[in-house]
Amino acid sequence: MLIMMSLNSPRDHIDKVKNKIIEHGCTPHEIPGSEKLAIGITGPSSTLTIEDFLTLDSVEEVVRVSKPYKLVSREMKRESTIIDVGGIKIGNTNLAVIAGPCSVESREQIFDIASELKEMGIKLLRAGAYKPRTSPYAFQGLKEKGLEYLAEVKEKLGMKIVTEVKDTETLPLISKVADVIQIGARNMQNFSLLEAVGKVDKPVLLKRGLAATIEDLLMSAEYILSKGNYNVILCERGIRTFETYTRNTLDLNAVPVVKKNSHLPIIVDPSHGIGIWDKVKPMAMAAVAAGADGLIIEVHNHPEKALSDGYQSLTPKHFKSLLDKLVELAPVVDRKLELYYD
Amino acid sequence: MLIMMSLNSPRDHIDKVKNKIIEHGCTPHEIPGSEKLAIGITGPSSTLTIEDFLTLDSVEEVVRVSKPYKLVSREMKRESTIIDVGGIKIGNTNLAVIAGPCSVESREQIFDIASELKEMGIKLLRAGAYKPRTSPYAFQGLKEKGLEYLAEVKEKLGMKIVTEVKDTETLPLISKVADVIQIGARNMQNFSLLEAVGKVDKPVLLKRGLAATIEDLLMSAEYILSKGNYNVILCERGIRTFETYTRNTLDLNAVPVVKKNSHLPIIVDPSHGIGIWDKVKPMAMAAVAAGADGLIIEVHNHPEKALSDGYQSLTPKHFKSLLDKLVELAPVVDRKLELYYD
Amino acid sequence: MLIMMSLNSPRDHIDKVKNKIIEHGCTPHEIPGSEKLAIGITGPSSTLTIEDFLTLDSVEEVVRVSKPYKLVSREMKRESTIIDVGGIKIGNTNLAVIAGPCSVESREQIFDIASELKEMGIKLLRAGAYKPRTSPYAFQGLKEKGLEYLAEVKEKLGMKIVTEVKDTETLPLISKVADVIQIGARNMQNFSLLEAVGKVDKPVLLKRGLAATIEDLLMSAEYILSKGNYNVILCERGIRTFETYTRNTLDLNAVPVVKKNSHLPIIVDPSHGIGIWDKVKPMAMAAVAAGADGLIIEVHNHPEKALSDGYQSLTPKHFKSLLDKLVELAPVVDRKLELYYD
Amino acid sequence: MLIMMSLNSPRDHIDKVKNKIIEHGCTPHEIPGSEKLAIGITGPSSTLTIEDFLTLDSVEEVVRVSKPYKLVSREMKRESTIIDVGGIKIGNTNLAVIAGPCSVESREQIFDIASELKEMGIKLLRAGAYKPRTSPYAFQGLKEKGLEYLAEVKEKLGMKIVTEVKDTETLPLISKVADVIQIGARNMQNFSLLEAVGKVDKPVLLKRGLAATIEDLLMSAEYILSKGNYNVILCERGIRTFETYTRNTLDLNAVPVVKKNSHLPIIVDPSHGIGIWDKVKPMAMAAVAAGADGLIIEVHNHPEKALSDGYQSLTPKHFKSLLDKLVELAPVVDRKLELYYD
Repeated sequence: MLIMMSLNSPRDHIDKVKNKIIEHGCTPHEIPGSEKLAIGITGPSSTLTIEDFLTLDSVEEVVRVSKPYKLVSREMKRESTIIDVGGIKIGNTNLAVIAGPCSVESREQIFDIASELKEMGIKLLRAGAYKPRTSPYAFQGLKEKGLEYLAEVKEKLGMKIVTEVKDTETLPLISKVADVIQIGARNMQNFSLLEAVGKVDKPVLLKRGLAATIEDLLMSAEYILSKGNYNVILCERGIRTFETYTRNTLDLNAVPVVKKNSHLPIIVDPSHGIGIWDKVKPMAMAAVAAGADGLIIEVHNHPEKALSDGYQSLTPKHFKSLLDKLVELAPVVDRKLELYYD
Repeated sequence: MLIMMSLNSPRDHIDKVKNKIIEHGCTPHEIPGSEKLAIGITGPSSTLTIEDFLTLDSVEEVVRVSKPYKLVSREMKRESTIIDVGGIKIGNTNLAVIAGPCSVESREQIFDIASELKEMGIKLLRAGAYKPRTSPYAFQGLKEKGLEYLAEVKEKLGMKIVTEVKDTETLPLISKVADVIQIGARNMQNFSLLEAVGKVDKPVLLKRGLAATIEDLLMSAEYILSKGNYNVILCERGIRTFETYTRNTLDLNAVPVVKKNSHLPIIVDPSHGIGIWDKVKPMAMAAVAAGADGLIIEVHNHPEKALSDGYQSLTPKHFKSLLDKLVELAPVVDRKLELYYD
Repeated sequence: MLIMMSLNSPRDHIDKVKNKIIEHGCTPHEIPGSEKLAIGITGPSSTLTIEDFLTLDSVEEVVRVSKPYKLVSREMKRESTIIDVGGIKIGNTNLAVIAGPCSVESREQIFDIASELKEMGIKLLRAGAYKPRTSPYAFQGLKEKGLEYLAEVKEKLGMKIVTEVKDTETLPLISKVADVIQIGARNMQNFSLLEAVGKVDKPVLLKRGLAATIEDLLMSAEYILSKGNYNVILCERGIRTFETYTRNTLDLNAVPVVKKNSHLPIIVDPSHGIGIWDKVKPMAMAAVAAGADGLIIEVHNHPEKALSDGYQSLTPKHFKSLLDKLVELAPVVDRKLELYYD
Repeated sequence: MLIMMSLNSPRDHIDKVKNKIIEHGCTPHEIPGSEKLAIGITGPSSTLTIEDFLTLDSVEEVVRVSKPYKLVSREMKRESTIIDVGGIKIGNTNLAVIAGPCSVESREQIFDIASELKEMGIKLLRAGAYKPRTSPYAFQGLKEKGLEYLAEVKEKLGMKIVTEVKDTETLPLISKVADVIQIGARNMQNFSLLEAVGKVDKPVLLKRGLAATIEDLLMSAEYILSKGNYNVILCERGIRTFETYTRNTLDLNAVPVVKKNSHLPIIVDPSHGIGIWDKVKPMAMAAVAAGADGLIIEVHNHPEKALSDGYQSLTPKHFKSLLDKLVELAPVVDRKLELYYD
């Protein structure tokens, strides 16, 4: 259920609505919009009726939310959510581009790539310090050392850092450095981790699991919002199908479906999605044409030597040629690719 | 194996190569290109060696084809195949748009839609007279009557007709009317039908099966080419996955993969691919951005009354708004959407 | 809708019901059971009401069929259908075992294998004369020659022949030799072929397609029944999933689901299902334990030299050891594996 | 690489081998068998050669392990691993049956079910105190309270407890009560949790993820073994496919594949696997026939009132009828279903 109140409702009217909700053992969520203020309700709302609220002051309308996901649904919030990452917006007409290597491999490597990206006008750097890997014997990231290098890159080059959290133990450390905390596909239904990032005051990039339906993805986002963190960016990164030519099947259908059903922004990771570097460019273009709010792309200055995911990484040169095309494409779908030159 | 000869090889040099192939129980396929003439070999070529050909006149190079598909592979023919449908090109910089209803439902219905499309500059009309349906009790098309109406539309409005063939029995009848013969997803591995259209002198539109890998699709195209019909247009139309929100999972990854591995053109059917009308537009845009050579889109003047597939059909008005966007998008990917006004 | 009449209804009562159905433009299907006579209705039954029938003589009950499939559903016919293949029953307590090579490869080969199987007590021989293959360059079967050998095996050894039909053209020829006509997975939705075998007076073995839901399989069977051939044996043979270790994913879940929703028998093909010979035995055992009415298993006397599917074929020796286990297993699930020694 | 030594190798010979491994920066794993003692090596073994070991005392053979998983592979350990859960064996000829409700719902509920199961001779009780749920608003388990009840059941009824761990935070608490620690499908690639249970001295039940290949499952088990816990029981519980009739597609093919490639035991969860209570029995039978080492089955005394998974739970009466059949089936596959009556 969703209580729609006038935007300039006085605080005591709002509090009355919220108290009524709390009395029934539920949790109120204040969701301000540009035209109305909505109060979302989560919890066992079965004893609440529409009539409980209609007579309260400043209440204009009471709406039942029909989806299993509540706070993330467009029924709850008509306007698209815009997320602010150190001044860079994700979710409005800006086309957000996050780029960088799969992993931090050394101080030199991450500075080299970050510098090249910065020169191209990119401010959002992706790079993993803690790497969840299918094999226990594969490179697991530089861990604390990797975070240190990222902190240094952040400070010296002014990049905003997007980096993955693997578990609740390392979340405090990562939160100190990250501007956006990434949850990987294999942790999309690690509910304890979702709840933990739900209590952190940082935007979260939530990747779709390999066998997750779009509804599953939205339910996982709901976990984060229900704990109080409304800054969630969804990410389509490919699902598992019978096709063997590509590493995964990038499911761009998710983009218009999410845009219709949720107010949260959705970006696309074509690097993992198709998994073959020379096909990343067309899939990145397709993602933007489908309406994605942004892209996250693996770029490595020596893909052939990368400690992970080299096969799907673009060289800076190829990435630059993609950027040039994106600048052309963005206006066709009413967006603008903002590049930041100091 | 592929024998590369100089473009102006004299006929007797060519015949010598072809005879050598025939002697070994194989079939030669002459594939002219703009720089070289290639002679493809199909059949049990195990007894042939590269040396058998290198000493023959006008032979410049002999190449092993590493893929299980031969005639459709880019190894066999470097240049993209351009298919001519009554003067309209598919496979070059032209962005081909095929539109129309799922089925011919009545003389009036097909004339109404075709006229509206013609006014928008569309010349390629899709509409089924014979409809393969999952249920024996569902509308199976107007059959001969439907073909008659299509023949009339073709004559009176000058449209080019794309229509589906269900079986070899009706192929002769359909071949008389169709400018492009469509093979549906469920018949993609109906090998007898593939062989039959391989002997017809009409372009074939081959749709990817619901569980077909990209390699399967190319192997099915190979069936058609191996019988002598080189005018095959591939079509991505969605595969089956665990996702339930969308009717199918339109797999745009197939576009760059096919473009790399085959010289045949590939178009995309976003209507079946995602299966929900209001998401057809973003997926159509995405398909073009991914590099598709064209689109095939379901348009119906009364989707709510359509006898089949109404839920995924665009109204002419929505289709027009898509066309306007495609005109803008095409140049970004080095194409042009040609509209034909009399 | 289903009209339940008493078993000994006089002919004129039955005809009255059937005429009423025909008047409304529908088709009546007489389905005799051991307790009642059911009249199924297919076609556009929307104008028919339950009341139309309740007042007619001998009518005991009128039931709405809720499933999209009608004639194949258990709602239509409570009792399991038993199919008679030259005296061998499929669908009752008998556990039917069909065995043989993928293809007829030579007169000698098929006689050798058939003789070995006959000695083990097997009477149902599988072997393909016309082989649908993914590649146009793969062995396509011995065709007419293969059928001739099968006819000879049938006559000399008294085996019952299960062989595949690829297209309507060769159906008359195959019908002369086959005791059971097989429709392969890739033709499961070749609706013209389904209709054609629906008019033949031979049992049909219908294999599930690689991306076919169980409902799709039942709808395809419905095509055959709706044309008058009620002797359809369903066959689970593996679906396509993301798993790459096995050739397909044998979906034994289909067995109890089909048994609940349809009166038709269902057998299992573990050879194609898992696709690796040394895992055929456990999957065959599992199929029987899950309630399958029978098995179809590839057996080849020289798997390593087989022209198709050698990797998934059992040697006669391994097949014999499976048979011994099946004899033990059958009684646990209230069946009996009948072996036929002359 | 795997160093095979004679069973009665003196300690100093063994230590010499282990030291050599440690010198190269790798980790030795002592894996005793009945005929030989194997020393497995994990870590960056690229600098080690077979010759490094062949000359050492008591070394009989050095084998390269070809699979990406090492410690879990049958190459590493020929004999099947037998896991002891309080005297009950899993992995030998015993057919292990774990049963119980999805969740602990109340003291009364868990005592009722546990008592009924105990009377039937079942000693392994499953029940979740911490429940990972797709929705943040669904019942999440009784948590600590639930564990307390389980501890009481364990003490008073002598049941062995199988219960799920959701995160590393609650692992110490759960380890105190659980006899087997379960990792759920959605946590199968929660690598930090895998490492944590790898350091606990309790058997682990590792469920296959919804999109996990069999190789992925083995790699996740490898994480646990590589940290020192060799007591891992694998569990097939259904994967995601396009089929919508069943909740998941129970993939019994995994059973023979795992048995061939790994020495670890594998059990099957038909309740989640097919997800419909009246089809659990045939799938349980099929699992055992396929060679599973055991079953884990949801049993609830009031399925219609269950707080989770009621639709797939058996009543005690139906479970009893399954048990009776399993007793008959077990000897056919050379097993015995041991029931424990005090």
